[in-house]
Amino acid sequence: MNALASMLGTIDPSVLSARLADERAPDIVESLNDEAPEVAAAIILGLPHDRAVEVLDQPELDSVADIIEMLPRDRVASYLTGMSADRITDVFREIEEPGRSDLRARLDAETRGAVDRLSAYGEESVGSLMTTEFVAVPGSWTVQQTLDHVRHVEKTRETIYAIFVLDPRTQALTKAVPLRRLISGNPEDNVLSVAPGRRPLAVSPTASREQAARLISKYDLLALPVIDAVGHLIGIVTVDDMIDAMVEKQTQDVQRFGGMEALPEPYMDIGFLTMIRKRAGWLCALFLGEMMTATAMQGFEGELEKAIVLTLFIPLIMSSGGNSGSQATSLLIRALALHEIRLRDWWRVALRELPTGMLLGAILGLIGILRITIWQKAGLYDYGEHWILVAATVGAALVGIVTFGSLTGSMLPFVLQRLGFDPATASAPFVATLVDVTGLVIYFSVAMVILRGTLL
Amino acid sequence: MNALASMLGTIDPSVLSARLADERAPDIVESLNDEAPEVAAAIILGLPHDRAVEVLDQPELDSVADIIEMLPRDRVASYLTGMSADRITDVFREIEEPGRSDLRARLDAETRGAVDRLSAYGEESVGSLMTTEFVAVPGSWTVQQTLDHVRHVEKTRETIYAIFVLDPRTQALTKAVPLRRLISGNPEDNVLSVAPGRRPLAVSPTASREQAARLISKYDLLALPVIDAVGHLIGIVTVDDMIDAMVEKQTQDVQRFGGMEALPEPYMDIGFLTMIRKRAGWLCALFLGEMMTATAMQGFEGELEKAIVLTLFIPLIMSSGGNSGSQATSLLIRALALHEIRLRDWWRVALRELPTGMLLGAILGLIGILRITIWQKAGLYDYGEHWILVAATVGAALVGIVTFGSLTGSMLPFVLQRLGFDPATASAPFVATLVDVTGLVIYFSVAMVILRGTLL
Repeated sequence: MNALASMLGTIDPSVLSARLADERAPDIVESLNDEAPEVAAAIILGLPHDRAVEVLDQPELDSVADIIEMLPRDRVASYLTGMSADRITDVFREIEEPGRSDLRARLDAETRGAVDRLSAYGEESVGSLMTTEFVAVPGSWTVQQTLDHVRHVEKTRETIYAIFVLDPRTQALTKAVPLRRLISGNPEDNVLSVAPGRRPLAVSPTASREQAARLISKYDLLALPVIDAVGHLIGIVTVDDMIDAMVEKQTQDVQRFGGMEALPEPYMDIGFLTMIRKRAGWLCALFLGEMMTATAMQGFEGELEKAIVLTLFIPLIMSSGGNSGSQATSLLIRALALHEIRLRDWWRVALRELPTGMLLGAILGLIGILRITIWQKAGLYDYGEHWILVAATVGAALVGIVTFGSLTGSMLPFVLQRLGFDPATASAPFVATLVDVTGLVIYFSVAMVILRGTLL
Repeated sequence: MNALASMLGTIDPSVLSARLADERAPDIVESLNDEAPEVAAAIILGLPHDRAVEVLDQPELDSVADIIEMLPRDRVASYLTGMSADRITDVFREIEEPGRSDLRARLDAETRGAVDRLSAYGEESVGSLMTTEFVAVPGSWTVQQTLDHVRHVEKTRETIYAIFVLDPRTQALTKAVPLRRLISGNPEDNVLSVAPGRRPLAVSPTASREQAARLISKYDLLALPVIDAVGHLIGIVTVDDMIDAMVEKQTQDVQRFGGMEALPEPYMDIGFLTMIRKRAGWLCALFLGEMMTATAMQGFEGELEKAIVLTLFIPLIMSSGGNSGSQATSLLIRALALHEIRLRDWWRVALRELPTGMLLGAILGLIGILRITIWQKAGLYDYGEHWILVAATVGAALVGIVTFGSLTGSMLPFVLQRLGFDPATASAPFVATLVDVTGLVIYFSVAMVILRGTLL
């Protein structure tokens, strides 16, 4: 595959289309993503119609708007008829006017209606993730009727492994029947005879994707029904769309925790200036926050002049506060995301982080004291006649800073969640910045207590 | 549910069992996880047999070893007969001897064999994630025979939505037939008539879980076959087990990126000393690394004494290097995990990060220079007669440090992957530590060039 992809530059796209035609759609997509949109468009044009539709139906295909721009309009219109409504909606989000309106007008009425409804939902909502290609039958049908219907519509449905049973009168969703139970049922019985006793789990189209993901993963669902306010089934979220959404969310979380805005596209596909914009925003915000360390240091200028030895340990002490904070934040982000801990448990966490931070700080403090003692005794460096007091200052400051870092880092995700933000937006650099300024103040305050009358 | 769970302390467990019996298994598990193992065991004992089995079959159940210790051996043995072999294997991993051997002896021969085979695989391998409860039929069967068999074994198989066809002679896996195609086939035809043209995707039991997750998510599979060296089907990985594994991996990644060893259990269930151990290791390692900053500062002691004003910006400059490094690391960790970038692309990344880092550094440098100028002009602080040179030092050092941070942070994941480690083990604090020492050296070197003859 890869060797093939790298030869693309020298080969006629039609030759390539012929070679790729037998590959699996996700593999074709991978090859196309390595190409410029005009080459990708030429290759798609050369594929058999069904394969081309399958390829365009993959959410992993990059630059789909550019590719579609380069294809003849009539071909695009015929491809669209084969694609799923949720994918068309996603593609339309990326195509600019007037192209979008033109393509929309060429859709058949049913698909156009579905796309219009789907595009009304926000990008982070379940509505934007759901598909309208599900199997639903009235509760008055028999198992046999249902099976015949399933066989008939199989090719046009995203999944047939969950069959939704509607109230024949109100059209409301009443049951979800797994296909595995349906095929084991008696053909003459009513379809409800093989339905599980419980009402099916369902979500609203305005619920968050997170919520759908949690339900699917907790209850091991293959498809989660989406219902409107009166209980009508308007779509389903399938497990594979949910996995794609999970992977995307995971990427955003890692990037946010790393201290930047999440990138909308793969690293190599992002323009230089977009990349700068996404990274510079956070860096500048953090930089402005860190400027308070300069202000804090200016406040302690007198102490600094009298005891230069204190400056030697500033980076060490500050980073320890940041590290302990970043540990605590990463722990609590996940515990909250997995619902291991609820918002109201914040005080239980605080009561745990307090002794944890103190003990961790004491361990680091001890190492710090040891280091100063060894360097002094071994003659590696002379920390002055009051070196014991300097060591005590470093040790005591570490206990205070690591405790403060652990507490701040663990409480931040709670505060964010309480304010309605995703706790995963708490980033390690942000926690470090929060802790740094306080860390300096703690360090110099401890120094003033311990060193007063000697160095200070 | 939650109100109910919080009342548990005052209610007889048998009353609770009756109440929980009608809940979904994952909800029962959630309630049990809030309880002490002895209460959870009492509740499980009070559930109908099938519900109890279903509950014990959920991987989300915490402290399962402790719960099982408290149940009568005969009951456990009868529960085990209903559980899936892969879950029994996971449970056995947590139970200590002699309990495990005793329970193993009570399994029926077939299950015992399956458990023995499964427990031979390493915890990170596909083998430890797979289940042996799949549907396989010989390629000589008809569609009707296959459907009858599927109906017959439905209740004892983890999924029946993928049916595996074996070569009647060699028993090797030849095709995977989705149930949706099987039910649409002509009953008299051979089962292979509804099979897709391609050989099924498959993995080896020793492959990594990552690899299985990638295949399932890329090809939208419901079940991925696991085959041995001669092509015999020995198990399948289902999509729901894979999602559980993905969530677990995501937790580990966030915790590692936050700078700590991944925790094996939920935050609140971990003992105080285990928590300290998991966190102290990394904190101490980082602390020892950061000690080099003290050594570096000692090396510049002369400069520090002459120009105290330089110390004011040390925290600001160091954190900027760390932040830009952590951004770049988080970007590349994900790009490598998603296979957007391959190992051999390192130089393309480096060529991108170099100008990115320089521009980002220039932006921060400009802000830094502005800040010093404004404070000086507004009389907020006096940086001395050479304040323009100090500002130039800070600005130039920021360009150097942010460039260095971006380069180091982006290359680290490649280095880790090249050495055979998971790039996700690169943590933000580790990157910061790497960059901090160098940052100090860059800062003071720039200062010596710019300030020589004036302040230094």
